[in-house]
Amino acid sequence: MIAGLEDELAKRFDIHFQHPELLDEAFTQASYVNEHPHQNLKFYERIEFLGDAVLQLTVSEYIYKRYPEMPQGKLTRLRAAMVQKASFAKFALECHFDQYIRLGRGEEKEGARHRSSLLCDIFESFIGALYLDQGKDAVVAFITKVIFPKLDAGWFDHAIDYKTALQEWLQRDGDVIIDYDLKREDGPENDRNFTMTVAADQKIIGEGTGKSKKNAEQAAALQALQSLRGQQETLVTHGKDELD
Amino acid sequence: MIAGLEDELAKRFDIHFQHPELLDEAFTQASYVNEHPHQNLKFYERIEFLGDAVLQLTVSEYIYKRYPEMPQGKLTRLRAAMVQKASFAKFALECHFDQYIRLGRGEEKEGARHRSSLLCDIFESFIGALYLDQGKDAVVAFITKVIFPKLDAGWFDHAIDYKTALQEWLQRDGDVIIDYDLKREDGPENDRNFTMTVAADQKIIGEGTGKSKKNAEQAAALQALQSLRGQQETLVTHGKDELD
Repeated sequence: MIAGLEDELAKRFDIHFQHPELLDEAFTQASYVNEHPHQNLKFYERIEFLGDAVLQLTVSEYIYKRYPEMPQGKLTRLRAAMVQKASFAKFALECHFDQYIRLGRGEEKEGARHRSSLLCDIFESFIGALYLDQGKDAVVAFITKVIFPKLDAGWFDHAIDYKTALQEWLQRDGDVIIDYDLKREDGPENDRNFTMTVAADQKIIGEGTGKSKKNAEQAAALQALQSLRGQQETLVTHGKDELD
Repeated sequence: MIAGLEDELAKRFDIHFQHPELLDEAFTQASYVNEHPHQNLKFYERIEFLGDAVLQLTVSEYIYKRYPEMPQGKLTRLRAAMVQKASFAKFALECHFDQYIRLGRGEEKEGARHRSSLLCDIFESFIGALYLDQGKDAVVAFITKVIFPKLDAGWFDHAIDYKTALQEWLQRDGDVIIDYDLKREDGPENDRNFTMTVAADQKIIGEGTGKSKKNAEQAAALQALQSLRGQQETLVTHGKDELD
């Protein structure tokens, strides 16, 4: 048993493992197993293999249902951003998983505990363990706390572009009419600047400038998103700041 | 509704959709939607996005549990072989899915119905529809008929090597002691041939020759697999021949 891990999961996430040996496996690196040859330990790699696929499906299903009009190409880009190693490493840190990894002495010395690739692996293997212990619904409940709030917090906007992100944000609670209008065009002929506004139900909510109308629209959408999110800050339970 | 599709699924797989509109979506290409603009149709791409992830997980979980000693690297190679486009296209043909795809006239003329990439997509989108309609267990029941028997039939041996495949085959029903022994070594010094035998519980079941002992072992394992599978042919319900 790994000291403190079960308490942490119970306290922060109300997760209680029926088979804590799955947790041991999920948080143990091969280097630790090699240093304790008589303890008959397992290391996390097989369970990580499973966890990776569990995350692919649960994230896919969530965005498939949440964005019923989003075409496949955008869904694919958004999923790729959400399931990338860098994201998982941040989630692992946020969950304090780094504190509970069992490493061999050599790996510990070399700072493996803080390596993004290991943190990502451990996040996946934890998901694999949770899935084996309690099934898909428990995984969905967990990532509803840890991953999905980051969508509203804007972590993955770049994957779908700001105009789409703004549209998804505004239309969460029903139809909203979104208009982009040219407010101003200035500068010399070969170096024009365009300024666009974006309005939701005829109320201007953002403005942006760029070298093309398209770029100006993206800038306007980003400004609108930032201001809308500022207003709703209290709703975003898991902020980005903790991890950056 | 797509004529005949529901009957085929009911007859061959005992599958009955509660929401047949999901089936319509899963079997309809964008080209058909474009030619019928007033029917408010959906095409398969979004649902295929989901089906792809469902297959990743269900196949991963199956091989994870079936091969409890297989290390991650081999699991990953085996999964890659099982979920590749060429495999899915064959499964789609085996299920007669090609007959039910709704295509635009241009695509039909160009032979899209027989294109491996489209067949693969349709197999994935069918899985997505089945998952949405009836959940993961229904998908597992379906691929237990369509995909998993191919493991025993040897379709994916190359992904894990013949020695591993033989070991998995022999140890399905409990422990078997497998020995590889050098039977003969001949040829000139710079062009040696090695002949190895493989025995299961001290009974020789295969023999192979190669330029190294390792290659000879692989050849012996392959011969053993072929002969064992020949004996069990009647057990393999979905043979390879139909599709090749």
